[in-house]
Amino acid sequence: MPVFTDVETLFSGIRGGDRVAIGRALTLVESSHPRHAEAAVHLLNLLLPFTGTSQRVGITGTPGAGKSFFLDAYGALLADRGAQVAVLAIDPSSERTGGSLLGDKTRMERLAVHANAFVRPSPARGVLGGVAARTREAMLVLEAAGYTHLFVETVGVGQSETSVSALVDCVLLLVVPGGGDEVQGLKRGIVEHADLLVVHKSDIDAARTREAVRAYRGALHLFPPRGDGWSPQVLAVSSVTSQGLDKLDAALKAYFDSSRQNQIADRRTEQRAYWLQAALRERLLARFFDDEAAIDALTRAEADVRAGHLDIRAAVDKLLPATKAGA
Amino acid sequence: MPVFTDVETLFSGIRGGDRVAIGRALTLVESSHPRHAEAAVHLLNLLLPFTGTSQRVGITGTPGAGKSFFLDAYGALLADRGAQVAVLAIDPSSERTGGSLLGDKTRMERLAVHANAFVRPSPARGVLGGVAARTREAMLVLEAAGYTHLFVETVGVGQSETSVSALVDCVLLLVVPGGGDEVQGLKRGIVEHADLLVVHKSDIDAARTREAVRAYRGALHLFPPRGDGWSPQVLAVSSVTSQGLDKLDAALKAYFDSSRQNQIADRRTEQRAYWLQAALRERLLARFFDDEAAIDALTRAEADVRAGHLDIRAAVDKLLPATKAGA
Repeated sequence: MPVFTDVETLFSGIRGGDRVAIGRALTLVESSHPRHAEAAVHLLNLLLPFTGTSQRVGITGTPGAGKSFFLDAYGALLADRGAQVAVLAIDPSSERTGGSLLGDKTRMERLAVHANAFVRPSPARGVLGGVAARTREAMLVLEAAGYTHLFVETVGVGQSETSVSALVDCVLLLVVPGGGDEVQGLKRGIVEHADLLVVHKSDIDAARTREAVRAYRGALHLFPPRGDGWSPQVLAVSSVTSQGLDKLDAALKAYFDSSRQNQIADRRTEQRAYWLQAALRERLLARFFDDEAAIDALTRAEADVRAGHLDIRAAVDKLLPATKAGA
Repeated sequence: MPVFTDVETLFSGIRGGDRVAIGRALTLVESSHPRHAEAAVHLLNLLLPFTGTSQRVGITGTPGAGKSFFLDAYGALLADRGAQVAVLAIDPSSERTGGSLLGDKTRMERLAVHANAFVRPSPARGVLGGVAARTREAMLVLEAAGYTHLFVETVGVGQSETSVSALVDCVLLLVVPGGGDEVQGLKRGIVEHADLLVVHKSDIDAARTREAVRAYRGALHLFPPRGDGWSPQVLAVSSVTSQGLDKLDAALKAYFDSSRQNQIADRRTEQRAYWLQAALRERLLARFFDDEAAIDALTRAEADVRAGHLDIRAAVDKLLPATKAGA
């Protein structure tokens, strides 16, 4: 872990687009070490006026939908056209595995070496709220560094869809043509977080792709109109042949059209309020769970509770010093 | 709200099976008022040696599966045979609606007036963890009062299945014969929390009931064997004709067979550890969120964060006094 004593130098480096400075800043905001917290807050305050400038897009979909491969193809198309593209990953399961996702980086062959792109595939470790909160701050660093198109890719499975939806302006859900049970997926609460639906790998089976597009379009019509006036669209894309990528690009341009800036600003305002609550809760819990003496006391209390010798409320009373509110 | 100054009198009343005392004790443990917390802890400590004596069964299933009607039929059958039956409801959505579920009480026509039964259909209000934690304590009160068969019914939809599974020894999932998509339900993570599967309303359509039983049995075979050695069973039941209720009773007796006491004790030990963590987290958050001055400060900070004037970490720094762990 490098030393971050000079936040001002780091700030200048980021604003100048220096990749080493950007990488250090990402490591700094992702760090859960209390010693780095003060520098991170200082840096974020300096960066704040230069943030909010990118199109923030989340990429979700089940493992096997080809998210990394799609991002490589679409990101390279944007970067070739002069956009500054950055990719972050969010992985709620990284808490358990602790694994870096270097495999994903090598799968983004074109984007990883592109002069106009920055790929950061290893998400921060920690609790889900913590991971997403750090991804949010990493996005601010990349925006201040001049990246115009930010992509947040969900890695692993589970609750990450909700977190990504609270991080980005637009969620892009990747699905693959299946065996006719397309509409089932719609019921599972994933689509309600999707602003665009991509039927991916359209090169493999044209008939199944058409059938899937039709099924999803029909199912989306059953949902009530959204409050922000946007109607989610369904598009077929092949990242192998690039077919459909231009149509997708046009759909995203329509989503980010200047006439929709108020809706996007409103969404970001709600997101900030959401993350304030999440960060506050995380810090309230950390005051106990980051304290070794408290953890020792908890371990002893848990043994008594497991054995049935101690009531749970009485155990909590012992663990927490009485306060005005907690008495 | 009655006064609970005399915990010893309440304790004697509960142990004597006095319904008024039981009702007051349930109101006491469900109360979120700080003034009642001390009396509740005192009472629970007195009751603790007399708890753990019942068969704890959770009833889950989608709205419309007939959970209350089933509980009325099966509970009355047990009560007629001399069992002491108590019913509690858990409703995560009660936080929002704040509504009492008197409608459910009147639907349990036989059980609600049975001398051997106690029906408490109005769950505590509050956050999900809080609701379930209070239901857990209500179960302890009812066990100390001599109830031998405790049923916890999930009301509403959503995450309550997980909470119920952490409260009871045995989860009974009610399903109704459907249009052939039975197996879809199995994939949705609900069945993994079910110890017995009841195909309910078997009187309506015998052929569909048989088909549903067959489909669920076939699908359950696809799951790996459980660590506790129990194989979930599928049974058809009609609460109108009582057909299948005796078979279900036999299946539950097999589940609670004396040879399985170690497995049930292990499950309860893990549940106590789980609820200790949940109660600790709830209390850590309550120290902030129960404090009016803190809420005022949060409201002001949120306005600045929404407007984009204040970074989220900086806002949290302002809200929480620096501590060793939170610095």
